[in-house]
Amino acid sequence: MLTYTLDKRNGVSLYEQLYEHVKGDITEGKLRTGEKLPSKRALAHHLEISVVTVENAYDQLMAEGYVRSEEKRGYYVCAVDRPLRSGKGAAEPEEPDEKSWFLDFVTNSTDGEFFPFDTWSRLMRRTILNKSTTLLRSTPSTGALQLRQAIAAWLMAFRGMSVSPSQIILGAGTESLYSLLIKLLGRDKVYAVEDPGYGKIAKIYDSEDVSVSRIALDEDGLSVTELRRSGADVVHISPSHHYPTGIVMPIGRRQELLRWAGEREDRYVLEDEYDSEFRFVGRPIPTLFSADEHQRVIYLNTFSKTIAPSIRVSYMILPPRLLAEYYSRLGFYACPVSSFEQYTLAEFLAKGHYEHHLSRMKTRYHKKRDAVIAAIRKGLPRAEITEQDAGLHFLVRLDTDLPDDVLRRRAAQRGIRLALLSDYYSDPGQATAHVLVVNYSGIQLQRLEEGLRRLNEIWGE
Amino acid sequence: MLTYTLDKRNGVSLYEQLYEHVKGDITEGKLRTGEKLPSKRALAHHLEISVVTVENAYDQLMAEGYVRSEEKRGYYVCAVDRPLRSGKGAAEPEEPDEKSWFLDFVTNSTDGEFFPFDTWSRLMRRTILNKSTTLLRSTPSTGALQLRQAIAAWLMAFRGMSVSPSQIILGAGTESLYSLLIKLLGRDKVYAVEDPGYGKIAKIYDSEDVSVSRIALDEDGLSVTELRRSGADVVHISPSHHYPTGIVMPIGRRQELLRWAGEREDRYVLEDEYDSEFRFVGRPIPTLFSADEHQRVIYLNTFSKTIAPSIRVSYMILPPRLLAEYYSRLGFYACPVSSFEQYTLAEFLAKGHYEHHLSRMKTRYHKKRDAVIAAIRKGLPRAEITEQDAGLHFLVRLDTDLPDDVLRRRAAQRGIRLALLSDYYSDPGQATAHVLVVNYSGIQLQRLEEGLRRLNEIWGE
Repeated sequence: MLTYTLDKRNGVSLYEQLYEHVKGDITEGKLRTGEKLPSKRALAHHLEISVVTVENAYDQLMAEGYVRSEEKRGYYVCAVDRPLRSGKGAAEPEEPDEKSWFLDFVTNSTDGEFFPFDTWSRLMRRTILNKSTTLLRSTPSTGALQLRQAIAAWLMAFRGMSVSPSQIILGAGTESLYSLLIKLLGRDKVYAVEDPGYGKIAKIYDSEDVSVSRIALDEDGLSVTELRRSGADVVHISPSHHYPTGIVMPIGRRQELLRWAGEREDRYVLEDEYDSEFRFVGRPIPTLFSADEHQRVIYLNTFSKTIAPSIRVSYMILPPRLLAEYYSRLGFYACPVSSFEQYTLAEFLAKGHYEHHLSRMKTRYHKKRDAVIAAIRKGLPRAEITEQDAGLHFLVRLDTDLPDDVLRRRAAQRGIRLALLSDYYSDPGQATAHVLVVNYSGIQLQRLEEGLRRLNEIWGE
Repeated sequence: MLTYTLDKRNGVSLYEQLYEHVKGDITEGKLRTGEKLPSKRALAHHLEISVVTVENAYDQLMAEGYVRSEEKRGYYVCAVDRPLRSGKGAAEPEEPDEKSWFLDFVTNSTDGEFFPFDTWSRLMRRTILNKSTTLLRSTPSTGALQLRQAIAAWLMAFRGMSVSPSQIILGAGTESLYSLLIKLLGRDKVYAVEDPGYGKIAKIYDSEDVSVSRIALDEDGLSVTELRRSGADVVHISPSHHYPTGIVMPIGRRQELLRWAGEREDRYVLEDEYDSEFRFVGRPIPTLFSADEHQRVIYLNTFSKTIAPSIRVSYMILPPRLLAEYYSRLGFYACPVSSFEQYTLAEFLAKGHYEHHLSRMKTRYHKKRDAVIAAIRKGLPRAEITEQDAGLHFLVRLDTDLPDDVLRRRAAQRGIRLALLSDYYSDPGQATAHVLVVNYSGIQLQRLEEGLRRLNEIWGE
C-alpha cells in the first residue's frame, strides 16, 4: 500500500500533497505503467484521510494523464514517457529521449531514401548563389512572394483551387498557424475538434486557453447536429481524410457544414489537410475551401508530411474577408520560416520537383502499404483490415479480448509501440477497442514478420 | 439510361469524364436524391466503355459522397445541395509592399557582404551528406541536441553562462518563444514591458490577450519601484543594452530586480538579449541569468540579429525549476526550426565559424558606426550625438523645434525614413522630442551625405 506522510499544517492542501507524492512516484518509476492503485476507500483508510481527499488527488492525476480509471475495476498508472525528476533544486530533469523501438506503429516518419537530397542540396546552393542579398532581408510577414506564388500555382494545377498569393500565409509547421488563427478569430470563441481525432489539436487549443468542444463523429464524419448543439464558433476538421478513422466527408455533410458556417458572421471552418496528397485511388477529393461560397473556410496544409518532417514549412489560406484584419492586427509578426528554405522550396515547386517527388512517394507508399497489409494478413490471419484508399495509415481490428492497455503494455515489453484507435477518443467505448492504427510509412519492412510474431505471443500469454 | 459523350482524345481519362458528367447531373438535380444508378455492367455496355472505367468513376463518386452503394442492390444518389458556384467573393486587399527608401534609419538589416555564404553553403551541403537519415526525423520539441550542446558551449565560453543543453529550447525567432512563455507562465499573469521600449513586444503581449503594464525607465533602466506598483508578475527587459535608449542596467538595479522576483513564487524576469554581442568597448556585460540565485530569470537570444534575419533560430534558457512543467505541459509541441538549419548552425558554432563571424561583424560595424557618426558630425554640425558603446544604434538630438511628426513627414517626402525616440514611448513627453534613433547597420554609406543634405533642408523649409 502507498504510504506517505501528509502534513496538515504546511499550507498545501492534503489532496495536493497526495497528488504530488503519487505523481512523483509515477514520474520516478516507483509506480510502474499499468500498476493498479489502491481503491479510494482503502487508501483513505490507510492514510487516515477522507475519501474525498483521495478522490480529488486521483481526479487531478487523471486530468493530467498520470492515471486512468477502468470502470468497475479501479485506477491504473498510465505510461509516462521517461522519468522527469522534479527539478526543484539544482538537479535537472534528464532529457526526454526517444526510445528506440523494434517496431513503431505510432511515428509516421518519412523514409530517408525517399528524400531527393541531391536536388534539394543543388537548389539550396543555387539559392545561396543567386539570392545573396534577398536572402539576408527578412521576408514579409506572410512569407516570400515567390514561394506563395509557387504554392498558388501548385494548388491551381493539382487541387483545382483558385487562390491569390496574398491569401497565403506561411508558418513554421501548422502548430504555429493554429496559434495565429486563434489570435485572428478570437480567444473568446469556442473551438470544436473531432472526437476521435488527432489528440495534439485539442492539446494545442487547451494550451492556448480557449474553450474546446469535442464533437462526435458518425459514419459521415463530424456530426453537424452535434456541432450545432455544442455552441462552437469555429470547427477544426480534416474532411478529406480523417485521422485515425480515414473517413472522407461526403458532399452532403460538407454542404451541411458550410450551411452551418454561413448562418453566422463569426463562424469558421478550419480545413486541415495533412496527407490528402497520398490518395492511391481515383482523383483528389475536392476541398471544402473550393466549395465555400461564404468565405468561411480557412485551408491549412504542410510540406512536413509530404517532403520531410525536417522541412518546417506549412501554410494557410485565408478567405479574402479576413485579409484586412490579418494585416492590420497581426501583420507585424515576422515570418518564422528561414528564407533559405522558403526560396529553395519555391524552386522545388516551380521546377516540378515537388510533383515528381510526390508521385514517387505515392508509388512507394502504395507498394509499402500493400507489403505491410500482405504481411499482416499472413502474420495476423484473423485480424480484419480496414483498408483505406488514402493516407499513411489504416486500421486493423484484432481478434482478441485483451483490453487495449494490456495490449499496449505487453507489446511495449516486446519492443513494439502500438497506436490504438481508442487512444483517439475522449471517451473510448467498447466498440473502439482492439483496433490498431497502423502508421506504416516509418515501418521497417524487414522487421515486420518478427514484430508480428511477437504480437501473436501477446494473446497467447 | 445515362447517356454521355465521352471523348477518348481530349486528354482527360474516360473515368474522370464520366465522373464529371454524373457529378454534374447530381449537383444540377437531373439525378435526384435516392435515384438508382445503372449497374456498372449495364452502363459500361450502354456507353461502350469498360466496366473498370465505370467502376473507377463510381468509386470516386462514392469517395466524395455523391453516391452510395447498397450491398447486393446497387448504387444510389445521395442528398446534395444545389450547384455550388466557384465564386471567390469580395475583392482582396493589395499586398502590403515595402517602400524603397533612399535612406532608411528604421530597418536594421544586415549587410549582404558580411554573411559567410561560402562557409554556410559548405556546411549545409555537408550536413545534407552526413546526416541524411537524422535530418528526416523531426528533432525533439526543444531542438536538436547537437545544436543545444553547441549553444551551451558557446554561452560558457563567451558569456560565462553555465547552462545545460536540456535547459535550452529553440524557437523560430524570439516571437515564437514569447508565445511559448505565455503558455508556460500563464495567461492570467500581468506582463510588464519597458517604456520606452521596442514596440513589438507590447504588441505581441496584446495579441496574446494578456495584461500588459508599461513601466517607466529612469537613468538606470526599468524602475523597480514602478514595477512593484504595477502589480506585474513577469517583467520583460533588455538589461544589457536597452532599445532605444542604450541604457545598461547597473548591478544595483539588477539586484533590486532579482530581489523583487525572489519575493514571490510566480515572479519571473525575461532577459531578452538582442544585440549584446556587438559591444565595442570592454567586457561583455554579465547576464542577469547568471546572477540569479532563485531560478527566476529566463534568458532569450537570437541568431537572426548576429548572423542574418533570414536565419530564424532563437533560443531561450529556462531555469531548472520550470523544466518539468515545460516538458509535461508543452513538450508535445514540435520544434518549429528546420533540421537542416539546426544542424548547419550547430556546425557553424562548434567549428568556430560563429566566433570568427561575430568578430568580423564587430570590426565592420564598429568602423561603420564611426563612419556614420563622422558623416553626421559633418552633415548636421549642431546635432548632439549620444554615443553608446554597444549595439546597432545610437541617438542623435537634433537642433530644431519642429514637432516629430512634421520631421517624419518632411523627411519621408525626401525619401528618408526616420526612427524617432518619441515613437518608443507610450506617452512621449517634450523631453523626448527631436531625437533620432539611428539604426545604422543597414545604411548605405555612399548615400549618407546626400541624405543628410536633404534632412538639413527640412528645418530650413
